[in-house]
Amino acid sequence: MTQRGLLIVLSGPSGVGKGTVRKAIFEEEGVDFQYSISATTRQPRPGEVDGVDYFFISEEEFKNKINNGDMLEYAQYVNNYYGTPKSFIDQTLDSGRDVFLEIEVQGALQVKSKMPEGIYIFLTPPNLTNLRERLVGRGTDSQEVINKRVDAAREELKMMINYDYAVENDEVSKAVERIKAIITAERLRVGRVVEKTF
Amino acid sequence: MTQRGLLIVLSGPSGVGKGTVRKAIFEEEGVDFQYSISATTRQPRPGEVDGVDYFFISEEEFKNKINNGDMLEYAQYVNNYYGTPKSFIDQTLDSGRDVFLEIEVQGALQVKSKMPEGIYIFLTPPNLTNLRERLVGRGTDSQEVINKRVDAAREELKMMINYDYAVENDEVSKAVERIKAIITAERLRVGRVVEKTF
Repeated sequence: MTQRGLLIVLSGPSGVGKGTVRKAIFEEEGVDFQYSISATTRQPRPGEVDGVDYFFISEEEFKNKINNGDMLEYAQYVNNYYGTPKSFIDQTLDSGRDVFLEIEVQGALQVKSKMPEGIYIFLTPPNLTNLRERLVGRGTDSQEVINKRVDAAREELKMMINYDYAVENDEVSKAVERIKAIITAERLRVGRVVEKTF
Repeated sequence: MTQRGLLIVLSGPSGVGKGTVRKAIFEEEGVDFQYSISATTRQPRPGEVDGVDYFFISEEEFKNKINNGDMLEYAQYVNNYYGTPKSFIDQTLDSGRDVFLEIEVQGALQVKSKMPEGIYIFLTPPNLTNLRERLVGRGTDSQEVINKRVDAAREELKMMINYDYAVENDEVSKAVERIKAIITAERLRVGRVVEKTF
């Protein structure tokens, strides 16, 4: 029996560098994840290939998929729909291959509600740890500014608690190493090893 | 506030190579675990240092520690007691340092019942995965011998399900890398990162 692949979800606040980290992971030697391909109702741009860049589908087909529960998450931008089809991910995982999904926070939470077995990784901006101490130590900001920055960071980090792991993106190569360690460890979880052994 | 260290417990069937793997981990650069020091009632041998090789204590003191709940696990061999004192581990963890405990399976389960927050790693012999297929493929063993070997492996692996992770000891260096990845990943668990951030 083929062991089901892992669903790895990389998310985090906008501007944190999710895309850069994801690209760096895919360039690593020995990494063979299937990137989760989105579906969209917009027209392909020159050079874009159906089933590679996106699944290009009609609005009717998209709405059918929503109604059938085949969209793990979706959103509408400028009259076009974008979403993550569940069937593609399921088929890939069933074939034993791992799927990597890079997605913003709202989408990640929707995916998690439908596929809680995934590994949810939150990419954080650098230097969140001990933010207040460092701002105070720097001595350049007023108490009010410091409070505002700490409050903003706190709001951002409230999203973190819905995830399994938090990875600081201080350097792309370090973030990549951390994510690789997480995936290695998850493959060694006893439940997965027992499944593979018998 | 100092973040509490991790308790890392390495266990597995006898003969699997726990000691060798533990020694190799402690020789790794950048590893700064406190090795969990056992208490014993036996006399120190020449060269053995109290608080380094063992905590050498009297039988009365040992029994007091059992009664006070300060022995995470203990056993008696040849009229001497051996055990793992909880207070030493707690103090080390509270100081922010990680503690590494190498222990046989019975002891590990006792420790787990008292410190479930630890990370429990089961070291497995190589080649347990798909054992039956490989024995059949080899074509040298009778069906009866194959069944016996698979049953024996199955019994051994039943212990595994009490652990968080299973690491195959096919090569010491590979086992060490896997254990290091597990520890890296555990430090990135959201609960621990949130604790460190605020």
